[in-house]
Amino acid sequence: MTRVLLPWSDLTVPPSLDATVYDGIAAPPDDLGDIELYVLPYDRGIAPIELIGAMPSLRAVQSLSTGVDNVHPLVPAGVQLANGRGLHDLSVAEHALALILAAQRDLPRWIRQQNRGTWERAHTASLADSRVLLVGHGSIGKAIERYLLAGEAEVVRVARTARDGVHGIDELPALLPAADIVVLIVPGGEGTRGLLGAVELAALPDGALVVNVGRGTAIDTDALVAEVGTGRLRAALDVVDPEPLPPEHPLWTERTVLITPHIAGGSASFHPRAKRLVETQLARFAAGEPLLNVVD
Amino acid sequence: MTRVLLPWSDLTVPPSLDATVYDGIAAPPDDLGDIELYVLPYDRGIAPIELIGAMPSLRAVQSLSTGVDNVHPLVPAGVQLANGRGLHDLSVAEHALALILAAQRDLPRWIRQQNRGTWERAHTASLADSRVLLVGHGSIGKAIERYLLAGEAEVVRVARTARDGVHGIDELPALLPAADIVVLIVPGGEGTRGLLGAVELAALPDGALVVNVGRGTAIDTDALVAEVGTGRLRAALDVVDPEPLPPEHPLWTERTVLITPHIAGGSASFHPRAKRLVETQLARFAAGEPLLNVVD
Repeated sequence: MTRVLLPWSDLTVPPSLDATVYDGIAAPPDDLGDIELYVLPYDRGIAPIELIGAMPSLRAVQSLSTGVDNVHPLVPAGVQLANGRGLHDLSVAEHALALILAAQRDLPRWIRQQNRGTWERAHTASLADSRVLLVGHGSIGKAIERYLLAGEAEVVRVARTARDGVHGIDELPALLPAADIVVLIVPGGEGTRGLLGAVELAALPDGALVVNVGRGTAIDTDALVAEVGTGRLRAALDVVDPEPLPPEHPLWTERTVLITPHIAGGSASFHPRAKRLVETQLARFAAGEPLLNVVD
Repeated sequence: MTRVLLPWSDLTVPPSLDATVYDGIAAPPDDLGDIELYVLPYDRGIAPIELIGAMPSLRAVQSLSTGVDNVHPLVPAGVQLANGRGLHDLSVAEHALALILAAQRDLPRWIRQQNRGTWERAHTASLADSRVLLVGHGSIGKAIERYLLAGEAEVVRVARTARDGVHGIDELPALLPAADIVVLIVPGGEGTRGLLGAVELAALPDGALVVNVGRGTAIDTDALVAEVGTGRLRAALDVVDPEPLPPEHPLWTERTVLITPHIAGGSASFHPRAKRLVETQLARFAAGEPLLNVVD
């Protein structure tokens, strides 16, 4: 029997594998000497990762995060490392849509009215017919696009490099003046820092909505504060720069801004997708087939 | 030239028609004696409707509302009446999705935190993987379904009569215990009054979300207040019974309830759809073809 260490007990495990459960909260099992595959508990800090050092028979490590920068240095040479790419995509896309619809249909206004017990009707903007600039067209961008098309919005795709049906990022200045909504789903780092700065924000038409579910650094926060402060632009942000946003930051109190604390990826849709990936990997491991999502 | 009276000036009008604009706000034109087609201004009260009596040459009236009960008695025999069926569907569907996502992704919580300037993360429910009971499967229900499928929810359809892929309303009691979300999109009237009463609400599992974008009378409000009062169920309601909801009503202050004041149909998506319908009707009228959406 090949021993594997798994974070949950509710998994379908091939009969040739002998599974032990370690959830990253309870104490780890003592006998780790013959563990050959270790599926890391999700989001439980560094201790479960350091446990790799107690597994001399290890052949593969499966992380459930997309980024494995903190795991990589602790994985010995010759041991495969697979990541959790895609497991959070749908959750992020769903939250992006929640932010867009909340802004377009003015949910903060209705919630304020509810707090006062006021029944007062008004017309709102809509997502339908809006021209939405999707900046970033990986798996999250594609998931957002499926929602937008279902809602009869017009989607304009932008990615780092132009390809069929997708504009290159260098075309962004020309596209901004005609956008009703801009959704940023770009990674962090120097390449995307200040992607929407004062000049780009000024190019957006009055009333445009800026949505960010990628990384906060992609928007120049001071420039955004200036534009939302006059009420010219609106924003719905799951990520900001800096994070956490300090209590006294002016962004909190802007009337046209909606802020959620970097929680787009953390919803219930993660677990079933993580479970499916782990079960697929267990079947491949048992059959001697190559794992998916191997990094390097 | 055939004279027509239209609510907007930004319409494409066939050359054989002579268009005059009346928006229902400014004073009506004096010379209405030879108007043959009258497109009623939308949502401007009874005065524009009574103007029909000043048009002896009238052959057809186009309303932009779905319900034409108030127009019908004022349309002379022999004059066609067409309604605005479908023009609000997408707006209602979009708002239903806004309510569902706001509840699942806990937007009221984030807005409360924003009001306090608090950055505090937490996991939420999701729409993805949820089993959604769509009660009502006309054009609004179908528009909601397109959104739900884009978001990888499981859709269970319920309509008045069972048909292929759609459960009959008599199966509702058997379906409620396995629903994560119930969306009501049923018309008013005695046939749907109290569709979700104490027994039906009790059949829902703990934490289920009740969404209503149809008519408030379809839910027994007292029974709902009891279930949300204990925190066992959640609700997101664009329609309630009574409307307007009085300022002191207990529903306003329930922590698990989100209320919008019957505004699902009133968004910017109406105008372009209404414009397209009117332009289609003008082309048909000019060509001597039968109008769409004729009632009776």
